[in-house]
Amino acid sequence: MAAMVPFSLLRNYSQLVSARAFVVKPNNFNFSKSVLPIQSRRLPFSASAANNEQAAAKAAAVNADSGAPTIFDKIINKEIPSSIVYEDEKVLAFRDISPQAPVHVLVIPKFRDGLTELGKADARHEEILGQLLYAAKIVAEKEGILDGFRVVVNSGASACQSVYHLHLHVLGGRQMNWPPG
Amino acid sequence: MAAMVPFSLLRNYSQLVSARAFVVKPNNFNFSKSVLPIQSRRLPFSASAANNEQAAAKAAAVNADSGAPTIFDKIINKEIPSSIVYEDEKVLAFRDISPQAPVHVLVIPKFRDGLTELGKADARHEEILGQLLYAAKIVAEKEGILDGFRVVVNSGASACQSVYHLHLHVLGGRQMNWPPG
Repeated sequence: MAAMVPFSLLRNYSQLVSARAFVVKPNNFNFSKSVLPIQSRRLPFSASAANNEQAAAKAAAVNADSGAPTIFDKIINKEIPSSIVYEDEKVLAFRDISPQAPVHVLVIPKFRDGLTELGKADARHEEILGQLLYAAKIVAEKEGILDGFRVVVNSGASACQSVYHLHLHVLGGRQMNWPPG
Repeated sequence: MAAMVPFSLLRNYSQLVSARAFVVKPNNFNFSKSVLPIQSRRLPFSASAANNEQAAAKAAAVNADSGAPTIFDKIINKEIPSSIVYEDEKVLAFRDISPQAPVHVLVIPKFRDGLTELGKADARHEEILGQLLYAAKIVAEKEGILDGFRVVVNSGASACQSVYHLHLHVLGGRQMNWPPG
């Protein structure tokens, strides 16, 4: 049942949520492909999804500059299971628990190093930024969507960022629309 | 009048379009902010925009692997004027002529080097990928949207890519929605 709670809410109240809430989704189990019906997987524009995400983003922005740990730290430390798609020394990629397309993977740096959001990037971050964007391509390859995928980075509340640990969304497996949100 | 022709069409038939078609938009003139009414600048989800872009993307995909020059080469070489926001040795950033938000800038590598799309990236491209993503942050800063902006990379027709020269979209100045297209 915990899987029914929007991730956008869960991830903003990670301190309040026990790891058990995520146990329904074991490692490397493709929740979106296996459990959700096709209709849910091929989401059209959804006003409620947008509103949830906007509200979650506003709530998260309150602590944006605190540098506090986020739920991604627990995922990196394997305290919370996630469906990992790709991992190397610097980068971790795992499925978004609230997928907006048949394939929806998040790519994050293992060491945040001040990158709460892209808007905080310094010239010294160029190397990790390149590794992240290249990892997005590796993810697309592994997921079989190399012929068509979209990478999205949200920076700040008005862009719907809801976890203050830089992350790239990799989406594909359906026709993506324009404008991009 | 040329400004009324969708860029999505213009850019796919660049060989057929004379540079004069772009002369209505001189360098560093912010077309979207100065000419378009507020309603046009704050675009809601637009089915026609999506369909235009999808059709343009399909048309462009036919020559995706040809490595043929694109309209971006003419912009880089200043054969076609563009509204440049940022430029350095490796990167050029200029306003999208069909803006989907009050701020909508494209960030491209000056040397394509095989990067017709993100899906063609090799490990050797990590450096330029990092420079591009960091340039997106510089653009956001210059445009006054550092508190909220979205970066989007479309790879392939189903992601609405319509120019086969890697480019990052930087969008902001309005609430961005979710899902991202």
